[in-house]
Amino acid sequence: MCDAGAVSTANNDPAVPPDPRPVCVLGLGLIGGSVLRALRRAGRDAHGYNRSAGPVAEARADGFQVTDDLTTALTRAAAEDALIVLAVPMPAVDPVLAAIAEHAPDCALTDVVSVKAPVREAVRAHGLTDRFVGGHPMAGTAHSGWAAGDAAMFDEAVWVVAADDGADPDVWARVARLAADCRAVVVPAGSADHDEAAARISHLPHVLAETLAAVGAEDPLALTLAAGSFRDGTRVAGSAPELVRAMCEANGPALLGVLDQALELLTAARTQLAGPSGTGDGDLAALVAAGHAGHTAYTATERTPLTDLRLGEDGWLERLRTAGAEGRVWRG
Amino acid sequence: MCDAGAVSTANNDPAVPPDPRPVCVLGLGLIGGSVLRALRRAGRDAHGYNRSAGPVAEARADGFQVTDDLTTALTRAAAEDALIVLAVPMPAVDPVLAAIAEHAPDCALTDVVSVKAPVREAVRAHGLTDRFVGGHPMAGTAHSGWAAGDAAMFDEAVWVVAADDGADPDVWARVARLAADCRAVVVPAGSADHDEAAARISHLPHVLAETLAAVGAEDPLALTLAAGSFRDGTRVAGSAPELVRAMCEANGPALLGVLDQALELLTAARTQLAGPSGTGDGDLAALVAAGHAGHTAYTATERTPLTDLRLGEDGWLERLRTAGAEGRVWRG
Repeated sequence: MCDAGAVSTANNDPAVPPDPRPVCVLGLGLIGGSVLRALRRAGRDAHGYNRSAGPVAEARADGFQVTDDLTTALTRAAAEDALIVLAVPMPAVDPVLAAIAEHAPDCALTDVVSVKAPVREAVRAHGLTDRFVGGHPMAGTAHSGWAAGDAAMFDEAVWVVAADDGADPDVWARVARLAADCRAVVVPAGSADHDEAAARISHLPHVLAETLAAVGAEDPLALTLAAGSFRDGTRVAGSAPELVRAMCEANGPALLGVLDQALELLTAARTQLAGPSGTGDGDLAALVAAGHAGHTAYTATERTPLTDLRLGEDGWLERLRTAGAEGRVWRG
Repeated sequence: MCDAGAVSTANNDPAVPPDPRPVCVLGLGLIGGSVLRALRRAGRDAHGYNRSAGPVAEARADGFQVTDDLTTALTRAAAEDALIVLAVPMPAVDPVLAAIAEHAPDCALTDVVSVKAPVREAVRAHGLTDRFVGGHPMAGTAHSGWAAGDAAMFDEAVWVVAADDGADPDVWARVARLAADCRAVVVPAGSADHDEAAARISHLPHVLAETLAAVGAEDPLALTLAAGSFRDGTRVAGSAPELVRAMCEANGPALLGVLDQALELLTAARTQLAGPSGTGDGDLAALVAAGHAGHTAYTATERTPLTDLRLGEDGWLERLRTAGAEGRVWRG
């Protein structure tokens, strides 16, 4: 058992000295590059790796310790007992995990990939589960690459830290501290719960935005008349198609279940709107009531902290998952 | 035939003197109140009516000529040969039309209600079709009432002017000039075309936003994780439920057809995402391609003017409808 209170407080409390343990960030795109910058801002010892040389040169020019040689980065991480942050796209997860298993199998390991269960399964396949606690900062922009990174990317953003059975409390605390040092708000969640929640609030919005954009564009007059509700409802359909697909398809099983819920609601609303005549003289009472209640619940959402838990105590992971499922946050 | 070029130029051209013919605005809510203000800004002679005394007092305090007596307003409109602007909510349209038929049946008449075919049908029922050309300014805010009005509400906004068979070219020109004097961009459209387009870009966005908000709120963890895509995708679900219902249900038949198109796309996407296993190992290629193409078409939409048409010439209404269906605008 470790004292969570001693290790998970965000670095913006000047009374708390920086965690002296190093961090190794693998992948210097938008998220990885932002993590590296946020760690420097927090006074943390951090270094990085990227496969392509361009971002490495850019990061070096910005004064960061980075390499384009994965073995070099991992050998250093192993020697320093660094926390490794996997910040590569999903397709690159597997080969990078293979290298970690070879060069730094005992390092604490986390990730910042947008889907949790598939990463966890890949980690298991490489025998790295014991030292792994997944993560997902809910932040980003429409841009990508090192240059788009920002030390303030995670300020007040939610950072999910996975609370799956078998997690090591010391690794969990290090990952939560990493998120807190990036000034994020830690929300504990089981990987499956995370993926379903992400499907609801991140992937379903993309599916509906694509649908709205496609239906709207069937009619040039409609596009000419379009105002605020269409603009906001289709905004994310402007994202790069390959990125939208990669994100949504990586979470296919969870998205499928959530999409079915949406289809069920819409189909019922369609029947109610069709009305007695079947031609549209009905109403939308049930859908609008449910939607407005949902919007009200959303705007009323508060980040209630979970307290009185010590990481590693009996049932700590189940308690963390329960707290996260209630929308609570971990402040250490 | 009238010379459209002489009557439809917006008042922001200082070389064009204000149209001297008066306007009578019935209903001083958000839209009617904004029309009255915009007309004063344009140097037009305008007066107004509102059933409840509160807005009348507010408008008087702001220096406008307004009354809470409908007969008084209509008697004056008839004496002055004013253009009457029907700016009351859909449920109040019928009784106000009855009063117009009694006190000012020969006045040119337009409206600013968000749905066109039902208003046109009500106008027909009161025998006022000959002097009627419908309208719909595509503008608004989340607020309502006189105090929420704004002279600049329609600046650069689209204002649909109905181009239905039987329209009088002089009335059409007066309505287009009204819109132009409010600094709006005139888009001609058949009433049925307008209602279908509005379903696509205004009412379907509400239906999808309500659905997304309802599905998201099924899970407190999801609401805690929600970021930009959920916020934007649910924004209009925060509108007052009775207003959303009134707007969408008034356009029920058109919305039903557009909702069916959305359901067809979503159902096909669901099948493709389910994939060979049926559990979510498929893809979203078709939906994302269609949505991204739609968003691209939307952002590329330009307001190409229709020129070389004289209102009243042979086939002028059909030409206006065709131009509007192509997303073109009328500049007189």
